[in-house]
Amino acid sequence: MAQRNATRVARPRTLGELEDDQQLHPLDEDLRAEVHRELAAFLGAKRDEAAQIDPQFVAAVDTLSEFVLGGGKRLRPTFAWWGWRGAGGSPRDPQARAVLRAVSALELIQACALVHDDLMDDSTTRRGAPTVHIEFAARHRENGWSGMPERFGAATAILLGDIALAWADDMLRGADLWPDQLVRAHAVWQAMRTEVLAGQYLDVLTQACGDETPETALRIDRYKTAAYTVERPLHLGAAIAGADPVLIQAYRNFGADIGVAFQLRDDLLGMFGDPGVTGKPAGDDLREGKRTLLLACALRAADEKKQTGAADLLRGAIGDPRLDSYTVAAVRELLIELGAVAEVERRITTLTGSALNSLQAADLAEPAATRLVELSVQATCRVR
Amino acid sequence: MAQRNATRVARPRTLGELEDDQQLHPLDEDLRAEVHRELAAFLGAKRDEAAQIDPQFVAAVDTLSEFVLGGGKRLRPTFAWWGWRGAGGSPRDPQARAVLRAVSALELIQACALVHDDLMDDSTTRRGAPTVHIEFAARHRENGWSGMPERFGAATAILLGDIALAWADDMLRGADLWPDQLVRAHAVWQAMRTEVLAGQYLDVLTQACGDETPETALRIDRYKTAAYTVERPLHLGAAIAGADPVLIQAYRNFGADIGVAFQLRDDLLGMFGDPGVTGKPAGDDLREGKRTLLLACALRAADEKKQTGAADLLRGAIGDPRLDSYTVAAVRELLIELGAVAEVERRITTLTGSALNSLQAADLAEPAATRLVELSVQATCRVR
Repeated sequence: MAQRNATRVARPRTLGELEDDQQLHPLDEDLRAEVHRELAAFLGAKRDEAAQIDPQFVAAVDTLSEFVLGGGKRLRPTFAWWGWRGAGGSPRDPQARAVLRAVSALELIQACALVHDDLMDDSTTRRGAPTVHIEFAARHRENGWSGMPERFGAATAILLGDIALAWADDMLRGADLWPDQLVRAHAVWQAMRTEVLAGQYLDVLTQACGDETPETALRIDRYKTAAYTVERPLHLGAAIAGADPVLIQAYRNFGADIGVAFQLRDDLLGMFGDPGVTGKPAGDDLREGKRTLLLACALRAADEKKQTGAADLLRGAIGDPRLDSYTVAAVRELLIELGAVAEVERRITTLTGSALNSLQAADLAEPAATRLVELSVQATCRVR
Repeated sequence: MAQRNATRVARPRTLGELEDDQQLHPLDEDLRAEVHRELAAFLGAKRDEAAQIDPQFVAAVDTLSEFVLGGGKRLRPTFAWWGWRGAGGSPRDPQARAVLRAVSALELIQACALVHDDLMDDSTTRRGAPTVHIEFAARHRENGWSGMPERFGAATAILLGDIALAWADDMLRGADLWPDQLVRAHAVWQAMRTEVLAGQYLDVLTQACGDETPETALRIDRYKTAAYTVERPLHLGAAIAGADPVLIQAYRNFGADIGVAFQLRDDLLGMFGDPGVTGKPAGDDLREGKRTLLLACALRAADEKKQTGAADLLRGAIGDPRLDSYTVAAVRELLIELGAVAEVERRITTLTGSALNSLQAADLAEPAATRLVELSVQATCRVR
């Protein structure tokens, strides 16, 4: 339940108001559009600031804005919003707009993560469009500028990512949260930022040193995805609402489990999904050398069963950028035959179950309870 | 003068205390060591946090710590501290330690800027040691890991820079400033972060598109160096002290002028300095394609005097990574002959003069007035 700051005297809510809060409010229903609106307003104000520095800088800000506003499921703000709602936050509260702005700032951290990630992986497309470093390299080439297009693309992607990371913070601070809300929010925000960067670092390191254990794969999923996508966003919303430690712990347990399940589903879709739906070629994770739990399970099974041919094929495929579709198909077969797909599916089911149990035990306010269950199912079901 | 927050009742300072403040305090005298101590304490606490995530992440934090603690002139915290002192901040104030911590956070923004800059420029050494991306690429190579060492070096440098940027913010927020001090500080902090990233972006863009005008070179110096190194740090210190707008404007005028002068001196040292003192090979800016005012003046002079041979030699040298020392020497000769060195020296003198005038008119508290003049002279004199 929302616990208001002692320095502000909140009028106790009437029973009628509490009942109203259990209905879906327009802010709840248009959440994705509302997040988009807040991001657009924030980036518009930043554009005006940029114009005072240099018109050429405005063009960079426009590229960043297009990237941020160009799509995305807005998962993190959505979890944060429902975390706040489930902890008693009311969309009728005059502070609701400030909360919406604060949680929308998560999308700017995500923009930094994606832009830098795409550069590190040298991914060429994102949401069907060229990635930022590829786009800027193309501009360099088209203009016949001096130096190497790739280096220019890399430099601008580094800087645009840095700007998104810095501005995420500006957006959180500028959201007009009450000072006590901001203090609580910032503690979670700091932990989350460190965790996602740690997760990315461990991911890069693991790809390089070839750590094949399922334990390592799960630890990366925990920090890079679960903490950052579900656990901490829910925690952020709860912290803004001033939730009690019991609810926060329930959210964190739920988020950690459902977040890992979500990543495991993503790993499966990366190998078996329809590129038309996932937006990236099947097998791309494999080509990039991502050390997924799916691969870790398959390798362990191949080693245990002494299927050296299978193990060699898998190890040879991981991180091979020129992998053809026949080999991808062969890897797919092996993942099924070695039982890795079944094992990962089982784990998704178990994690989803324990996540939903944590949620149920928390006795959340409606409609958050229902909505979080829906989000869990959407994020972990077979087709997305 | 420090203007205390209305919600706190500060005991008026006695005449004796005010006189004491005009003397150098141990915090003033050991500023560099004190900044180092604060950074070490902060990074030590972050190391403990990292240990709870993953031992391998600790190794990354250690590399970042070595980089941050490994050297540097601590110019930005120094200017911020003296900005605070000059606005009436007292080292005997119980808040002095919090202010010191807050201004030390500037070094973490600087760490991000340097790590990312070195990667963008592909610089191999920094402060006599390998740069971060080079160091991590070497580790990759030594361990015989999979994938390309250069890509691993780039990815880790991107992430360590991101971590430094995120933690700069954590350090500012965790400095224990009073809430009103933090609100004022953060406004300046936000502006500064955007300015330095804009300056870097314009720098990258200008190198690529080959904008040769002195005006562009000066605009980049203004944002990338002056605002970020002197103007905003002074402003930050003044904002924490609650300085009046007149003093803030004086600081900003001073900082903008002396900061550009400082960059111009750096440009000259980059071409004519002793590599043993500057820490990088002479002509490196030229090889990297930096569009300095020095080069812009030389090119304009060559074009005006129709010295096409000289102009061609200069244009051919800018951004040529394989430039030999003979050509660097020839460029040096041309910079002198074309009057560019004299023009830049003149400009340094003019800017230093106007900066010192702004400072004098501001009627600063001692010993800040004297110290800022000393810093100005140090930063713009011929030998550093």
